[in-house]
Formats: sequence, C-alpha cells, structure tokens
Amino acid sequence: MRIDVLTLFPEEVDAYLNTSIIGRGRRDGLLDIRCVNVRDFCTDKYRRTDDYPYGGGQGMIMLCEPLYNCLTEIKGGEKVHTVLTSPRGKTFTQARAKELLALDRFIIVCGPYEGVDQRFIDECIDEEISLGDFVLTGGETAACAITDAVCRMVPGVLSETASFEDESHFSGALEYPQYTRPEVWHGKSVPDVLLSGHHENIRKWRRRQQLEITRKLRPDMFQKLELTKEDKKLLEDIQK
Amino acid sequence: MRIDVLTLFPEEVDAYLNTSIIGRGRRDGLLDIRCVNVRDFCTDKYRRTDDYPYGGGQGMIMLCEPLYNCLTEIKGGEKVHTVLTSPRGKTFTQARAKELLALDRFIIVCGPYEGVDQRFIDECIDEEISLGDFVLTGGETAACAITDAVCRMVPGVLSETASFEDESHFSGALEYPQYTRPEVWHGKSVPDVLLSGHHENIRKWRRRQQLEITRKLRPDMFQKLELTKEDKKLLEDIQK
Repeated sequence: MRIDVLTLFPEEVDAYLNTSIIGRGRRDGLLDIRCVNVRDFCTDKYRRTDDYPYGGGQGMIMLCEPLYNCLTEIKGGEKVHTVLTSPRGKTFTQARAKELLALDRFIIVCGPYEGVDQRFIDECIDEEISLGDFVLTGGETAACAITDAVCRMVPGVLSETASFEDESHFSGALEYPQYTRPEVWHGKSVPDVLLSGHHENIRKWRRRQQLEITRKLRPDMFQKLELTKEDKKLLEDIQK
Repeated sequence: MRIDVLTLFPEEVDAYLNTSIIGRGRRDGLLDIRCVNVRDFCTDKYRRTDDYPYGGGQGMIMLCEPLYNCLTEIKGGEKVHTVLTSPRGKTFTQARAKELLALDRFIIVCGPYEGVDQRFIDECIDEEISLGDFVLTGGETAACAITDAVCRMVPGVLSETASFEDESHFSGALEYPQYTRPEVWHGKSVPDVLLSGHHENIRKWRRRQQLEITRKLRPDMFQKLELTKEDKKLLEDIQK
C-alpha cells in the first residue's frame, strides 16, 4: 500500500504516522507512506503557499501552483486517485476505507482550514473526504485518520490479520467489554463467565453484551444489524 | 483552556499538536496542552501497560492501574471531566466541541484499539467519544481532532476570533468556493463577481453557492438549515 500525504507539516505527520502499529507496518516494508512538503514546490522566492481570497474575507487560500507542481511530481506521469480532506467532503466511513484499500495507492492532499483555490480542486482532485461534522485547523488529522484506517487493514500490519473483522464498525456492532489482570481491581471482579474457560458461554456472553451495548448506545447501528436466530434468542434473554 | 492527553505516544502527539494554529496558541500561552506518558505510571518493573484479555481473544487490553495512577496524578485531587476516545463513544460533533470548550479543562484518555479494562472505564471515565464510524489503531488521532476542534475556538487562537462562526458546521452550511491569485490559472478564470469589488453581490453569490453546494452534497445538513427570506429567493434564482 502506498499513500502520499501532501502537507505543510510533513515532519510532524510523518513522526505521528511512525508510532504504534502503522509505524511497525512501515518498518516491515508493508506500508509505503510518504509525507511530502508542499512548500518545496513553490516557485516564488518567498515560498508562499497561500494568498488572500478574491472577493475579500478572513483567512488565506492555498495557491494552485505549489499544490499542482507537488502533485504532478508525486504522480510521476501515472494516474493516481487523489483525495482532498475538506469539510465539504463525504463523511469518512469504514466502507470507504475498504474501497481505498483496494486502490493499492492514492494521494491525500491536506486541505488547510481556510480553503484551497477551487480551480485546483476542480482540475486535480478526484474526491473530497471529511472526517465528520466538526471544524479542524487543517486537513492533517483527517489525513492521519484515513491513512491509519486504511493501512491497518493491509495484510500483515495487524499481528493477527483476521482480527479486524471482529471489530466494531466491521461487524456492524459495537465491541463487548474487555477485562485483563488483575481478577479483582478496586473491589470489582472480572465477570465470572470470562474466568470459566467455557468458550461457548464466553462467546454467547460477549455477543449478548455486544447486542445490548449497540442497542443502547447506537440504535442507528442496531437497526442495520442482520440478527441471526441466536442473536434474537440472546436479546430475549436480556429482556427476561 | 487546559487539555491533558494521556497516551503511550506523548512525544509524537505533542509535536503534532505544536504545528500550525494550535502550536501558535500554545506558544502564546492561550492553550495549555499536556501530553502525558501513561507508561511512566506503571508499577511493575517491565513497565507493562497491557495484558491478555480474560476469556481469550485477539489483542491486548490496557491495564487499569497505570491509567488510574496517571489520571489521579494529573487530576491532582480536583474534579476534572474525563473523556475516553473509543469506537463505542458518541460521535464527535461541533456542538460537542463547543460544550467541551465551555468546560475550560478536561482530560482525554487515548484508548488503544484493542480496548481498555472495562472497570477503569466504569470508575474513571465520564464520557466516551468516537471520531466516526471507522476503526483506528489508537485513540490518538481522535484526541488530536478533539483538541484541535476545541482549541481553535479559544478566543485569540485564530487571528480573527470572529471568523470561525462563518464556517461550515458552524453556520450549518458548507463553505462556498474560494479563489486566490492568479486571476487566470490553467485557462480558468476567477468568477467575475469576485473581482467586481461589489460587496453585496459577492455576499449574495457566496451565499447562493453555499446553499447550492450544501443541498447537493449534504441534503441532511440542508434540511436542518433555517432559510431566510433571502435564502429562499437565492435558491429560486438557481432554479431559473
């Protein structure tokens, strides 16, 4: 998987994307993440990347030219899918992460909060993605989230490649509660069933918790779940 | 505004939150953001922060004790609102960012993707927040997004404190297209109205664009807009 991130803060984004599991995936050669400094592609001597908006208003707008030069160089003549992080974009989801994974390569342009010249977007951007309905100072956080969500699904990046299929937003249900040592902490015990060694009971208990939590916290997700016969029985048990 | 971020990657998160506008706000003394290493609060000689889940399964679960010790030290005996980033949490929104801003101080615990011992959550966490319906390898990206969205609203952090009220997700509509120099780029001109110097026409053009874009890209947002008489007229003009 190769992802190029075009940003004004390549060092910080690169360091951030070098932590934890994504960092390990990069060191293992599974992930090719390149953070590129847009400022290196300025053509004027002041290395300006933005200028005042036509028509007036607050904030500065990112210039077409450095972004265009940067993108052209990174593409190297190939057709590569381009994403701009933008509050105007479609809200990012796990489904979209899976589709991006299938591309095998794409480029993320980090949109600054003030905006990017619309002509660059019209000419060079295939898709705008928003992280959610909140405002950030820059597109870097969205770029990190997209990169992370996609890269962790690359085979071999998680120690157990199968494990992510179990997770919330994958299975369509939220996760069950987890416990680790010690058995008793601040007077609270781990639920007995988890110490029982009875795999079938553990599985059922976890599934019941999952269904119950999802129904309570995310009724919208719960409604979309395709409940099995067993699920329905587990839910009846809760009501009793 | 003070935000403490409890994480296993304090240096990278700190460096990331030192860029751009948030970094300037910190240097100006407007923002007190402290990234704290949970690992420093381990009590065993191996400095373990996680262990295997009771009941089996993939992944490692974060231990109660280091998190609890860290939180206790950071709180310093005071009552401080605590947030855990978690896929189970309520989806983060601009409205929630505003509420957190009003708290003046809160703590974010970065949940690792595998999970945190439920007993710590039950005892120490006031609120779980999710960034969206996608899975990340850790809660750091969500912590950065929350910190950024809240901190940029602290008076004085943006150069023009009034400006953020104009933005999408604040006004309830997406932003209009922006243009900056040059007037012609790759054969494409800036829309004439923006060069006209006619402020009233510019305002109307921008508002029309905003309404049109929001209706097209985010019908859910559009439906919630309280349209003024002028808005309705502008929309009629589009249909003509």
